[in-house]
Amino acid sequence: MNRKPRIVIALGGNALGNTLPEQMAAVKITSRAIVDLMDEGYQVVVSHGNGPQVGMINNAMAALSRENPNQPNTPLSVCVAMSQAYIGYDLQNALREELCRRRGRGVPHEDVATVVTQTEVDPDDPAFLHPTKPIGHFMTEEQAHYAERAYGYVMREFPGKGWRRVVASPRPGRIVEINAIRTLVDAGQVVIACGGGGIPVTRQDLGHLRGASAVIDKDFCSCLLAEEVNAEVLIILTAVERVALHYGTPQQQWLDELTPGQAEQYIAEGHFEPGSMLPKVQAAIAFARSKPGRVALITQLEKARQGIRGETGTRIHL
Amino acid sequence: MNRKPRIVIALGGNALGNTLPEQMAAVKITSRAIVDLMDEGYQVVVSHGNGPQVGMINNAMAALSRENPNQPNTPLSVCVAMSQAYIGYDLQNALREELCRRRGRGVPHEDVATVVTQTEVDPDDPAFLHPTKPIGHFMTEEQAHYAERAYGYVMREFPGKGWRRVVASPRPGRIVEINAIRTLVDAGQVVIACGGGGIPVTRQDLGHLRGASAVIDKDFCSCLLAEEVNAEVLIILTAVERVALHYGTPQQQWLDELTPGQAEQYIAEGHFEPGSMLPKVQAAIAFARSKPGRVALITQLEKARQGIRGETGTRIHL
Repeated sequence: MNRKPRIVIALGGNALGNTLPEQMAAVKITSRAIVDLMDEGYQVVVSHGNGPQVGMINNAMAALSRENPNQPNTPLSVCVAMSQAYIGYDLQNALREELCRRRGRGVPHEDVATVVTQTEVDPDDPAFLHPTKPIGHFMTEEQAHYAERAYGYVMREFPGKGWRRVVASPRPGRIVEINAIRTLVDAGQVVIACGGGGIPVTRQDLGHLRGASAVIDKDFCSCLLAEEVNAEVLIILTAVERVALHYGTPQQQWLDELTPGQAEQYIAEGHFEPGSMLPKVQAAIAFARSKPGRVALITQLEKARQGIRGETGTRIHL
Repeated sequence: MNRKPRIVIALGGNALGNTLPEQMAAVKITSRAIVDLMDEGYQVVVSHGNGPQVGMINNAMAALSRENPNQPNTPLSVCVAMSQAYIGYDLQNALREELCRRRGRGVPHEDVATVVTQTEVDPDDPAFLHPTKPIGHFMTEEQAHYAERAYGYVMREFPGKGWRRVVASPRPGRIVEINAIRTLVDAGQVVIACGGGGIPVTRQDLGHLRGASAVIDKDFCSCLLAEEVNAEVLIILTAVERVALHYGTPQQQWLDELTPGQAEQYIAEGHFEPGSMLPKVQAAIAFARSKPGRVALITQLEKARQGIRGETGTRIHL
């Protein structure tokens, strides 16, 4: 079958802006970078984070239940679902518009679709015992204690900045809607899926999926998505052009090409910050190891086109 | 091609409950009725209303922007998008669970997927000049005037009940993601689409889709969806088992079979209440007229299986 090589691109939730006007500006820039990759001959599948967005939606639903006692508080899993449509709607339209602009047409050749996506996690994942992923806005100590009492949130103090809710970040196990995603990708659509790492669910008896109070790491979920759609390339976007050793020190050294083994060595030496570059490198290693020929590329959004041409970014492969 | 006959079923937003716990109970009942239709040999495509849900989300986003001046008010189109995932996530899981239960399997044969769906409307639709569709909760006069000033809402008094926001309810023109929906339906998936009548958008120059402050009638949108997936049957659910002449009077007369012409005659005689049975009958007429052999069935959720067997409900066809 003469199909185009496939890229899964993992956008950061922070790169999508904290408010709707910010998001509407951000998705335009993001869409240019994604259509650049399409113009390089690739089919692109888009996943994205949702940290600020799911926090904002969670805050809105909490504000509503404070005003209206008939509205119970909304579980985080439902907020993740809502964030997928909140982001997907804007992103798919910005992609459509960029495709129309480049092709000079009123309706694009390529269709764009957002699939509401759930990701199964293991209810015994140790991450549930140690919530680490901050979501939502900073609060005062008083607000934080209220949130602990009223909603059972786990709150953590970030010295000098305030308090934030933290939730578990378990590893993704299975993408529930993978057949729908594959069907649309095989039909040539630009698919937006696994937003925010997917709605976290645990499987109960006989097919019942139960929402979990968690946010799945979007880079690990993107790795799983890339494997499942048999992508050639996984692009993990970050704030820097390349991965570095001794980052931010006088000894800083940019990395161009790495084997999974070398990357693991650097992890062991403590080069990558947990919650920042570390999970990205770990997801990249997992994808590179999953099949010979697969390449994980870590770079900035603005450098994605040059990265796919091999001109910049950090490439991890066997 | 030996495909199953197709049903598009249009669920009412009110039948999905006003709060999340109500919704979680309602989708279980709804899913039993939908899987009943699948057991009768049909492939089912699901659309649904979102009146209470989009109102609730709109209120939550407004509550957030009152608490946090950095959060501008969220447009209705974005709230419709969020309501599609809010409802779709619960509904698709209830469907999965019912399929698993009936088949005695942990993973269903049939996949279920929710597609974020936009519907193009005509910016010159006269509905925009006369907003009629109430959304959200009832307010006091004072709250209503605040909403008019602060957000530019059009508010209407419902005597004895209070004030509610009303928005335009334009006719659906084109389902933007129809190719994605068709691709998934053709692959045998149970697709949930066009939630709330679709996210209302108007087409600007060169492919730009702009969100509109409107809620599209879900029955008209379901009719369009049914035509576009070449369905044999459109089921429009309502609170009564059949359509009636002289409804609620001593002369009340239930209707079993109607041609589009007869139905139009009854409309002209004023038998059907605007905003209630009237748009359902109009959507049913449009579907029945769209192609010989197509049947529109108006009945209650609990009677859908008997209705599809021809034992109850009101059937409109050429």
